[in-house]
Amino acid sequence: MRSISKEKYDILVNFLQQNEIQALFVADYEDSPSINLRYLSGQPSDGMVLITSNGESFLIPWDLSIAEKYAEADEIFDISNYEYNVILILKEIIKKKFGDSKTIIGICKNFPYGFVIKMKALISNVKFFKEPRKLDTILGELRATKSDFELKQLTKAAEIGNKAIKDIENFAYNSSNGTENDLSFLVRQKIAEYGAEDIAFDSLVANSSRAHEMHCYPFATNQKFALPGLALIDFGAKYQGYHSDITVPFKFGNLTKEQEKILEIVLQTYEGAIEMVDIGVPLWKIHDYVEQILKNEGYSMPYSLGHGLGLSEHDSPIISRKPKDEYALKYWKEILVEEGMVFTIEPGIYKQGIGGIRIENDVMVRNGKIEVLTRSKLIEVP
Amino acid sequence: MRSISKEKYDILVNFLQQNEIQALFVADYEDSPSINLRYLSGQPSDGMVLITSNGESFLIPWDLSIAEKYAEADEIFDISNYEYNVILILKEIIKKKFGDSKTIIGICKNFPYGFVIKMKALISNVKFFKEPRKLDTILGELRATKSDFELKQLTKAAEIGNKAIKDIENFAYNSSNGTENDLSFLVRQKIAEYGAEDIAFDSLVANSSRAHEMHCYPFATNQKFALPGLALIDFGAKYQGYHSDITVPFKFGNLTKEQEKILEIVLQTYEGAIEMVDIGVPLWKIHDYVEQILKNEGYSMPYSLGHGLGLSEHDSPIISRKPKDEYALKYWKEILVEEGMVFTIEPGIYKQGIGGIRIENDVMVRNGKIEVLTRSKLIEVP
Repeated sequence: MRSISKEKYDILVNFLQQNEIQALFVADYEDSPSINLRYLSGQPSDGMVLITSNGESFLIPWDLSIAEKYAEADEIFDISNYEYNVILILKEIIKKKFGDSKTIIGICKNFPYGFVIKMKALISNVKFFKEPRKLDTILGELRATKSDFELKQLTKAAEIGNKAIKDIENFAYNSSNGTENDLSFLVRQKIAEYGAEDIAFDSLVANSSRAHEMHCYPFATNQKFALPGLALIDFGAKYQGYHSDITVPFKFGNLTKEQEKILEIVLQTYEGAIEMVDIGVPLWKIHDYVEQILKNEGYSMPYSLGHGLGLSEHDSPIISRKPKDEYALKYWKEILVEEGMVFTIEPGIYKQGIGGIRIENDVMVRNGKIEVLTRSKLIEVP
Repeated sequence: MRSISKEKYDILVNFLQQNEIQALFVADYEDSPSINLRYLSGQPSDGMVLITSNGESFLIPWDLSIAEKYAEADEIFDISNYEYNVILILKEIIKKKFGDSKTIIGICKNFPYGFVIKMKALISNVKFFKEPRKLDTILGELRATKSDFELKQLTKAAEIGNKAIKDIENFAYNSSNGTENDLSFLVRQKIAEYGAEDIAFDSLVANSSRAHEMHCYPFATNQKFALPGLALIDFGAKYQGYHSDITVPFKFGNLTKEQEKILEIVLQTYEGAIEMVDIGVPLWKIHDYVEQILKNEGYSMPYSLGHGLGLSEHDSPIISRKPKDEYALKYWKEILVEEGMVFTIEPGIYKQGIGGIRIENDVMVRNGKIEVLTRSKLIEVP
C-alpha cells in the first residue's frame, strides 16, 4: 500500500496538470535514493514509478516479489520480460499513453543526470520539466503533514526510542568502561526487543574526543564512551517504515568553562525553540531564533535546526534558515507549523578542541496541540 | 589520505586533458552518494571535490573537522565562511582558475540533475561534459585494481568474514529457535569483536519463507530462521573502509525436488564460474556462462554475477552481461580479469513458491594468482 492519501494524490495530479507535466518520474536505487518511491507506490526501495497527469501509476520494481507484497500501482512491470532494460518499459508506457507527441517528464532535483541524458537520447519525444525544485517542493509539502495512521506509527517509533533512553541512562551510570560500540549494540538490541523493525539509522555514538564532529566518522568506535567532557548519542527507531530520531547529551565529570557555556546555550536554545513551536509559526523563525543566539555568543549553526520524520529519518519539513541567495529564494516557500507535522528540534554547538553537544527531541502536532514525543535530556555522570 | 595512487591520479588528469574537461566534479551526500569522493579526496562522506585538468584538487567538506582528520586536497574550504552556500565557493574556484572562459565540468551519471541546472543558472561560463558515463568508466577502471595497501585491507575484511562464517554455522546447528534478527545481531557483534570497524552493510537474513526475495525487505525479522527449505545470510565486514561480502546458503530439513534442483544448479554454476576466473578472461563471459545455464534450466539471472569490492560494497568491476542495446554498448568496454582486482562471484536463483538460494565468495587476483578469499559453503542442517 502506498502512504500517500487519495486526497494528496489528487493534489499531486492537479499540480502535474497545472504545470503541463505529462508524467512525474521517480527513481530509487542504492546510488540515487528517493523516499518518494515508497511514498507514491509502497515499494520500499529499488525501483521506478511513473505517475501520469491523469493519475495513472506505473511501477518498475527491481524485485517483483517484493512489489507484490508491498506495492500499489495501476500496472507493475516485470523487467525480466524487457531484457532488464527499463528504457524499453518507459518507451512502451510513453508510446501507449502519449503517442509521439511531446512528453514533459517531471523529475526531482536528485534524479541522476546520466539517466536524463539517456532518456533524451533514446526516447525522442521526451523533454524534462525545467524546474525540478518545484517537484521537490510539492512532494515535500505533501509528505510534511501525516495521516492518522502515520502519526500512530511515528508515535510508536518515538515510544520505542523513549524506552531505549532508559537503557542509555543505565549504561552511562553503570558501564563506566563501556565503549562507543557497546552502547551502539545495546541500543540496537533493545530497540529490536521493544518491537521496532530496525534502528532508524546507524547510531552516532561520540565520546568527548570526537563529539565536535557533527556526523562523526566512524559512527562508533572501540574507544571508551565515558571520557570526561561532553558526549552524545544520536539514534532512533524504525517502526513499520516510520522513524524516530533522538540525541541524548552527556556530561561526564567536570567541564571547562567553555564546555559549560556551550552546554548551557544548547539546552537553553532548545527550550526556547520548543516554546516557539505553535500552529502558524513560520519554521524559519524557530531556526533563526537559535541561530541568532549562537551567533551572538560567537558560535555558528552549521546545519538546520530540525527536520521532518516519516518514511525516512530526514523527511519534510525542514526547519532551516530563510535562504539569502536569489536562486534559492525563488523556490523557497515559508512553511508554517501545521496540524499533522512531526519534526525534530536539535540545536548543537561543535568546536574542535572544546567539544560538541546537541540535544534532539521529536515534536508532533496533533489535534491542535504540540506534543514533545521523545524525552531526551542531559545525562550527568559525576 | 586519498586512496587513489599518484600514478592513477595522473591517468585521471590526463583523461580530463584529452577530453577537454576543465574540471571533474564529484559530490557525495545522503541523497546522492558517490564513493568517488572518498577515493579522490579521503573525505569519508558528505562533501564535494573538484579536480582540475592540471591536477589541482579542491575539497568542500560539510564537516571541516573530519576533513582535517582524513582528507587530502590542495585546498580545503570552510563553508561557514560562505554562508553555507557551496555555489559561492565553486564560483570562486572557477573564477580563479578559469576566469570567464568557457569551463567544461565533468560529472558522473548519478550526479543530481537539480545541481546541474542550478550551476548552469548561477555560473554563466559553466558547461557540462555531455558523456557522464565516460567518467564513470574511467573512475571505475581506476578503482577496479587495488594497490597493495588496499589488497591488505580487503584480505583482512575477508578474514573477519571467514571467522563470522564459523559463528553462523554454530548458530544454524545449535539455535534451532533463533530468529533472523538473532542471527543478524550475532554477526554484527562477532564482526566488531574480530576487529572490523562495522558490518559492511545491513545483513540480509532470509529464512525459507522469503529467501526468494533478492534483496529481502526488511533485512531481518523476528521470524524463526531455521524453517524447512532454503535460506541464506548475506553479510560482510568493513575493515578500515574496505568491504567483504559473503552469502552463506542453508538447507534445512528435506527439500522438494525443485528446491534440490535450484540448489544444485547454483552450487554447480558457482564452481564453474570460480574455475573460469583467470587473468585475461573477459568478465562478461563468466557472467554469461552462469546465465546461459540458468536460462537453459528455465530460470533467469536477474542481476549481475558479481561486483568489485573496495571502499564500497559495490565497487568496480562489475561482472555482468554484455549489453544488447546500442546506447549501453557505446559506453561498454570489455574488462578482463586483471592483477589487483577483488570481486564477488554470487550466482543465485529466486522463485516465488519454491524458494531462493545464493552462494557468494570474494575472489582476489594477486601476484598473478587467483585466490578465493572467503569460505562460504552450503550449511546443511538435517
